Amino acid sequence: MITVALPKGALLKDCIRLFQSVGLDFSAFLDKDNRQLQITDPTNRAKALLVRTHDVPVYVEYGQAQLGIAGYDVLREKTPQVAQLVDLKFGTCRLSVAVKADSPYQTTLNLPAHGRVASKFVHCAREYFDSIDLPIEIVPLYGSVELGPITGMSEAIVDLVSTGKTLKENGLVEIETLFYSSARLIAHPLSYRIDRDEISDLVAQIRNNVSLVTSQ
Amino acid sequence: MITVALPKGALLKDCIRLFQSVGLDFSAFLDKDNRQLQITDPTNRAKALLVRTHDVPVYVEYGQAQLGIAGYDVLREKTPQVAQLVDLKFGTCRLSVAVKADSPYQTTLNLPAHGRVASKFVHCAREYFDSIDLPIEIVPLYGSVELGPITGMSEAIVDLVSTGKTLKENGLVEIETLFYSSARLIAHPLSYRIDRDEISDLVAQIRNNVSLVTSQ
Repeated sequence: MITVALPKGALLKDCIRLFQSVGLDFSAFLDKDNRQLQITDPTNRAKALLVRTHDVPVYVEYGQAQLGIAGYDVLREKTPQVAQLVDLKFGTCRLSVAVKADSPYQTTLNLPAHGRVASKFVHCAREYFDSIDLPIEIVPLYGSVELGPITGMSEAIVDLVSTGKTLKENGLVEIETLFYSSARLIAHPLSYRIDRDEISDLVAQIRNNVSLVTSQ
Repeated sequence: MITVALPKGALLKDCIRLFQSVGLDFSAFLDKDNRQLQITDPTNRAKALLVRTHDVPVYVEYGQAQLGIAGYDVLREKTPQVAQLVDLKFGTCRLSVAVKADSPYQTTLNLPAHGRVASKFVHCAREYFDSIDLPIEIVPLYGSVELGPITGMSEAIVDLVSTGKTLKENGLVEIETLFYSSARLIAHPLSYRIDRDEISDLVAQIRNNVSLVTSQ
């Protein structure tokens, strides 16, 4: 039986809609009273694990799930050994550098050398500032990264932006985009190659249905 | 003005009660509609930041907050450069090793060499297994660590246990306790030493009120 790892949170609804389009129903995860972390599709063809978005690549990398759905941002940050198969087009956002609207630094190259940048995306932020040869101290945070510049702890942040509402509410403006992100179908490379349980058929069906799901 | 960093989540209520006992009111953070991440006490003597529990030591280490409240578990995992001042006695829990109830490994020394242990506390888990000379692969997870043994990805987990309900619901049993944890009052070392804004008075008051708050 195929096991798929699905991310809790914002992507879940679209993930479930996508699997429904190929005949697999994991909608029990959307039930507010649900406390189960693994369920089997009513047709008994596949199992789903409900895990944190950052944990999806872990379950797929270790082969505990043959397929999974994870944001491209997570894949860029954690660089897991998984196969990226399909761009699912939903969950779109971008990883951006932002500063206070009244900041004297209106481009990343103007940021002061050895200044501080707060981020949940430590690896991506490090990679970006290395690429422009700017020595920066990354302050790793778990949440509410916008507090970095507000409290004066950092000159800038590197954070995900989707609508831009959170930035605006906190008086921050984007000055650079590192990359654009969307949800990706990923697979355990060996399982995909060996193709037991007809994973490749399922992947082909999902690929065909992407536009169908995202246009809803 | 003193700034204190308070942790979102389970510890927040007790934190607010503690500061109320010394005349500082941050109860606006408990308002469900509150979206503010920083508020000033009505008496204008102190400001509070509302941040993730893992981010509290960061704000204190960088001096953006002179005081903060963080779990001992977080301090052990992140080893920030902060002064631990007072054991606040609330938020008690323990970091434990757990396995499936029917696991053949009923002590940590029986775990197979090069076996896998899933944990959010990567550093503490590594330190513990090093201390008993057992080579173990740590699988870093962000949440729902109990899925590790259930899916077969790991032989054991290292996770926080408070009531033990989550372990029980998932058919897991504790086989070892790494350490006991509770909330701690922490300070930015330099701010505490310089003692501007009479931080040490506030700390002394808090120390006196600990038993008062935890007995409620």
